[in-house]
Amino acid sequence: MTKRTLETCFSPALYEPDNHRNSIVVIIDILRASSAICTAFANGAVEIIPVAEVSEAKDYKTRGYLVAAERDGYVLDFADFGNSPFNFTKEKVEGKSIVYSTTNGTGIISLASSSGITVIGSFLNLEALTQWLMKQERDVLLFCAGWKNRFNIEDTVCAGAIAEKLMASNLFETICDSTLAAIDLWSLASPDLSGYIDKTAQRSRLRDKKLDDCIEFCLTKNFTDKIPVMKNGILIDLKL
Amino acid sequence: MTKRTLETCFSPALYEPDNHRNSIVVIIDILRASSAICTAFANGAVEIIPVAEVSEAKDYKTRGYLVAAERDGYVLDFADFGNSPFNFTKEKVEGKSIVYSTTNGTGIISLASSSGITVIGSFLNLEALTQWLMKQERDVLLFCAGWKNRFNIEDTVCAGAIAEKLMASNLFETICDSTLAAIDLWSLASPDLSGYIDKTAQRSRLRDKKLDDCIEFCLTKNFTDKIPVMKNGILIDLKL
Repeated sequence: MTKRTLETCFSPALYEPDNHRNSIVVIIDILRASSAICTAFANGAVEIIPVAEVSEAKDYKTRGYLVAAERDGYVLDFADFGNSPFNFTKEKVEGKSIVYSTTNGTGIISLASSSGITVIGSFLNLEALTQWLMKQERDVLLFCAGWKNRFNIEDTVCAGAIAEKLMASNLFETICDSTLAAIDLWSLASPDLSGYIDKTAQRSRLRDKKLDDCIEFCLTKNFTDKIPVMKNGILIDLKL
Repeated sequence: MTKRTLETCFSPALYEPDNHRNSIVVIIDILRASSAICTAFANGAVEIIPVAEVSEAKDYKTRGYLVAAERDGYVLDFADFGNSPFNFTKEKVEGKSIVYSTTNGTGIISLASSSGITVIGSFLNLEALTQWLMKQERDVLLFCAGWKNRFNIEDTVCAGAIAEKLMASNLFETICDSTLAAIDLWSLASPDLSGYIDKTAQRSRLRDKKLDDCIEFCLTKNFTDKIPVMKNGILIDLKL
């Protein structure tokens, strides 16, 4: 059986859209966009409309939508709430459409829209996501959001956790150094994931802004079996 | 004492020139450009003129220069030799000016030319380079050439080896995830560097083209104390 190709991209600045027209692209931005999106669907959100620009988010707000929007960790003044998964409670999001705009997360979703299928990955849906990826007949790209086009450790170790499972299935092959490095960094991080993430730049940024209360939650494995998938520019729950 | 900043960049596509106008930028392209350049100076080359374009290299050849030029590992037909450090023997290079153009290496040198100081790093000059970096009053960027704008493991572990020494000196600080990841990958690679590099994409590429005879040499630490430095667009030997 021909193996499928597994690759990893560490930054939007390194994304090569022409190589992934038919691939499944997994967006990983665990602190905090992809964790927040997974949480929203776990708590019954109907759809999430990602918008890259603040002006777009504001426009949706005036039209009555529930809006989650932040820049650099701070909630925008017109928004209903920001980017912490803890905001996306059942009380707030069940049965709702949510417009969502963040520093990194929504820009990368837009960038990946030319791929075959775009889904959202995090530790929160790790097992469901990897099991589903194994069953598809497509190559996979693990697309780390990074931070302002820079490499970051937390998305890389999450990519490594996914890659380790996919490679262990024997269904995939990789000659991608980024994937090999991600698996190796995950092997270093996994015995004490929270301790490992503690040294990262984003952890420091969130701590400085007192926005780090959700980090432990974002590192929780298999909180949900929801897989958010992009359809016509909108994220919905992929029914397994 | 104020600590200096240490950062690492994994690809030319991630380079932020405005952040490094006063920094020392260390170009790392160990398979094979930066190793070949260090070897050339170890064997008595007077200067190396890096040129990005094949047409430029050809033009120098017609003017009588010794030309080392390759693309994707293969020697260009008009060139005297290619990119293997083994080409840069004392017999060939002592007392000579060499024009040099490679797939990755010379493009990145041109990109880094807006930095404060640009030098060439490899395992071959690891100790001399790190000792010199510690004595300068400048921030340092470890700039990995990667491969066609992609992350690669071999340059990253070399950056990690340099970074580990600089951080151990207590003269530097870093909040750069790329630096932390490079140090961690180096910690995994260092017990069996050759075995670790064996899994990388570039190792496979060179093996397929039967160009991998020099890899063990490129992983040799401290073969030379030469530090190639850029002056007015030309690489010369930094006199220590």
